[in-house]
Amino acid sequence: MSGDIWRVIESPQNPRAKLWADILDGRGIKRHGEFLLAGRKSVPEALARHGGRFHALIAADPGEAAGLALPDHIDRFRVTRSLFDRLDVSGTGFPLLVGKVPEMTTADLAAPPVGIELIVALGDPANLGALFRSAAAFGARRIVLMEEAAHPFHPKALRAAANAQFELELMRGPSWAALDAAQGPIFALDAGGEDMGAFVWPKALRLVLGEEGKGLPAGLKVKRLAVPMTGAVESLNATVAASLALFSHFLASR
Amino acid sequence: MSGDIWRVIESPQNPRAKLWADILDGRGIKRHGEFLLAGRKSVPEALARHGGRFHALIAADPGEAAGLALPDHIDRFRVTRSLFDRLDVSGTGFPLLVGKVPEMTTADLAAPPVGIELIVALGDPANLGALFRSAAAFGARRIVLMEEAAHPFHPKALRAAANAQFELELMRGPSWAALDAAQGPIFALDAGGEDMGAFVWPKALRLVLGEEGKGLPAGLKVKRLAVPMTGAVESLNATVAASLALFSHFLASR
Repeated sequence: MSGDIWRVIESPQNPRAKLWADILDGRGIKRHGEFLLAGRKSVPEALARHGGRFHALIAADPGEAAGLALPDHIDRFRVTRSLFDRLDVSGTGFPLLVGKVPEMTTADLAAPPVGIELIVALGDPANLGALFRSAAAFGARRIVLMEEAAHPFHPKALRAAANAQFELELMRGPSWAALDAAQGPIFALDAGGEDMGAFVWPKALRLVLGEEGKGLPAGLKVKRLAVPMTGAVESLNATVAASLALFSHFLASR
Repeated sequence: MSGDIWRVIESPQNPRAKLWADILDGRGIKRHGEFLLAGRKSVPEALARHGGRFHALIAADPGEAAGLALPDHIDRFRVTRSLFDRLDVSGTGFPLLVGKVPEMTTADLAAPPVGIELIVALGDPANLGALFRSAAAFGARRIVLMEEAAHPFHPKALRAAANAQFELELMRGPSWAALDAAQGPIFALDAGGEDMGAFVWPKALRLVLGEEGKGLPAGLKVKRLAVPMTGAVESLNATVAASLALFSHFLASR
């Protein structure tokens, strides 16, 4: 298809329109293996740096895509404003990219960790996306996503990640039971643990981040680290707590 | 009104029902001076520790309030499931409390700061609420809310704050121009600033947190601190960045 031709989709019953409406949540993304990327800053940046990951662009008004350097392999679709608004869940008002979810292999925890590796069960996609940003910022390369975790390509996760997901190696997690056999030091954040403010970080380790508000699965055999706090609140936002650990490890490693 | 009587509201046109539907966003909360608090953990905890701040409880099924120790001054309202679901924006399925927004006076920045004081313009209520948790956790007592900031009693802010808002002194901000005359050291987080990882924190200071994605107003006369990062991403989530500063200050002060 030539680079400057726009296909028009007007019916919400169009198979492509239906697929796109379906990939607004984790289940649909899993089923179809595709995702939508939004953002006035994220879309041009992703096109420039990771154009090969995308195969379509969706706009209500082709004029809005005028400034975008679109490679030829990306199909352009013009849709009705109402369909566009339904797909543009963050209300960016800017063309959306459609990409293929990369293959995620299951992590082999019998191999030792490289640097700080995260084992994550965060269920809130916005928390997960913000965590991706912190992980990329502080040199964590590998993120192992447990079954409870939100989908890493959920629109809210991508919005919060601001393209950090492309800087990381995302892997599927094994069962919680498999963590008992994991190589190398393995830690989790927990109010009852050792004071993280005085902790001497090993260079390589695995850090487990449980589901928000639920803590860790019972019986998990990991060392516990606690973020020191005043006691005025019981806990921090899960991504904030994880980011403090990533930051501390980063400072200790440089 | 006796403590165990439930008033029934079935019409969405009922004045109370209309008021409650109105206080789901910052504008309505400002207009009516009331807010809704939700959460299976936050509601019982707020009742036990701050019962005097609330005057009504809303449930679709009084049985769901059975375990709550409700003081006599709190009116009980039974509403239809559809009205309840509309008010329960976080989908907690647990009775909601109605409270009065406390008076917020305008901060006098000509007085020196006590400890670390935050001057905040975060527009995302979930970011703001999570920041409240971090502030309470790391000993910041006073939060000065600039005009751009989300309403501190927005349902999403309260959900993310997990009652931390009650541990803080929330104040209205003066104009940005007034910051030039502020007493004591005043800092902001900015990618071009001094390395925060090596920074020697003063005990008392003001820390400015600009709007997400917009940075600081041009010409603001503050010292700049940068969170050291790998360079793989341009920036962190605003609440994460602020929490790193609060944590670093807290560690340096203990």
